[in-house]
Amino acid sequence: MNSVAIVGTGLIGASFGLALRKAGFGGAIVGVSSRNAIADAVACGAIDRGASLAEAAGEADLIFLSQTIGRILDSVRHIDAFVRPAALVTDAGSTKCLIVDTARQALTRCQFLGGHPLAGKEKRGAAAADADLFRGRPWVLTPDEPAELETAAAWDFRGWLERIGARSVVLDADAHDRAVAVTSHLPQLASTALAALLEGAPAAQLAGPGLIDMTRLALSSYDLWRDILATNSDHIDRALARYIQELEHLRENLRTRELQREFERAAAAAQAIRAR
Amino acid sequence: MNSVAIVGTGLIGASFGLALRKAGFGGAIVGVSSRNAIADAVACGAIDRGASLAEAAGEADLIFLSQTIGRILDSVRHIDAFVRPAALVTDAGSTKCLIVDTARQALTRCQFLGGHPLAGKEKRGAAAADADLFRGRPWVLTPDEPAELETAAAWDFRGWLERIGARSVVLDADAHDRAVAVTSHLPQLASTALAALLEGAPAAQLAGPGLIDMTRLALSSYDLWRDILATNSDHIDRALARYIQELEHLRENLRTRELQREFERAAAAAQAIRAR
Repeated sequence: MNSVAIVGTGLIGASFGLALRKAGFGGAIVGVSSRNAIADAVACGAIDRGASLAEAAGEADLIFLSQTIGRILDSVRHIDAFVRPAALVTDAGSTKCLIVDTARQALTRCQFLGGHPLAGKEKRGAAAADADLFRGRPWVLTPDEPAELETAAAWDFRGWLERIGARSVVLDADAHDRAVAVTSHLPQLASTALAALLEGAPAAQLAGPGLIDMTRLALSSYDLWRDILATNSDHIDRALARYIQELEHLRENLRTRELQREFERAAAAAQAIRAR
Repeated sequence: MNSVAIVGTGLIGASFGLALRKAGFGGAIVGVSSRNAIADAVACGAIDRGASLAEAAGEADLIFLSQTIGRILDSVRHIDAFVRPAALVTDAGSTKCLIVDTARQALTRCQFLGGHPLAGKEKRGAAAADADLFRGRPWVLTPDEPAELETAAAWDFRGWLERIGARSVVLDADAHDRAVAVTSHLPQLASTALAALLEGAPAAQLAGPGLIDMTRLALSSYDLWRDILATNSDHIDRALARYIQELEHLRENLRTRELQREFERAAAAAQAIRAR
């Protein structure tokens, strides 16, 4: 690929531009974003210049939609008229079913391949961008059919994912959304619910490091979560139901040996995700 | 005070000995523990020597019970015959009602003042002891009556708490147990329940830093928790019920604006415990 359009030059988009440059990509990188975000992304070297969506999409071999979910859906609905037929459109949305379904309907003139890089940091914006943000982290790809990974454009993109150090994981969109409901969306709501209980409680003066860990996600802005929760609510509903059931089970067994079994199961699972 | 007995020379007991020495305490510090634990505590300078409970209690002005809750209860039941009448017996148990009630019955010859230093680290044992472990951390005292804080022995002890940098917090035993049910015991069970859901899940390969934070407490050993859960089960039951209710509320509002309000309340509470 010779030309990349990054639509949305926040933390993820700008980091992708920096990562491509660090990995040796010598083609054009054009950004589509607000005036301020473009200035920040140019300043840090993530993109060469800004452009309109129509102009950027008309030139690019790879169009990377690294916006919020709602804006990715908008871009997918409007981009078809501008794209080159050999181009690949991909995205960084945190939920996949609705985006993939929308792209299947709206994008008729070039290939779409859903993606989700599981990377981030507490700071937002191009000023916090990092060429190594994706190194060693999973980058989920959600083709409808395995053949979608084998097109020339997909091979080219996957080669660059490998060069920037991301670990490709192929899942169907529904399996992705079910998995992140448990690994990401449920932890967020578990933290939010815990912190909400502390509101105005004198108990808060006894906060220790465990409570600090368990309420860190609760600091997250709702702006980042609205679209995620709205576009994955069925899987999140089921994950919450399972979590509540597990909590009820612990509650019924506070004085029994069953609790020891639950602690041991939980510790083993917590160890397992650290061993990767 | 001229002589201290530390009963249980693990992380908390040995750190208390080191903290006293660093703060300038020049009297005797005798430890009561297993042979190996005594050797470790002597080696790190936390105690001068080991002794039997009878011998150590017979000499000490301050007797600090820094054992597991079950063993603190045993010590409290057996120590009365040995203590000097001017001595103060205090403890480091993570729950207070049962210990304070037991001491009220069993300790008739000297004063008892319940305590709970909210300090710790992931490593256990005297080898991990730290003279600054209590610095800036709350140390809860749970007198039955305010006058118990005004005895000569209590003043002396409270002066040393100040010198080692601990922040004294006075609560009645039930208020303490209700507070730590929310700030400590509920976060533990919330983490254990979350990690238990990951067991065998393919989802685990998508673990990010949020899930790592939220499952750190789940690594805790049940050995440390059995006594805590058994001796505070009523307050923990109520805390779990409130938590489940809050989770159900989030679950019912995944697509409504009410969720924004809950995120904002939770973020404010999470900020508040960090601002202390």
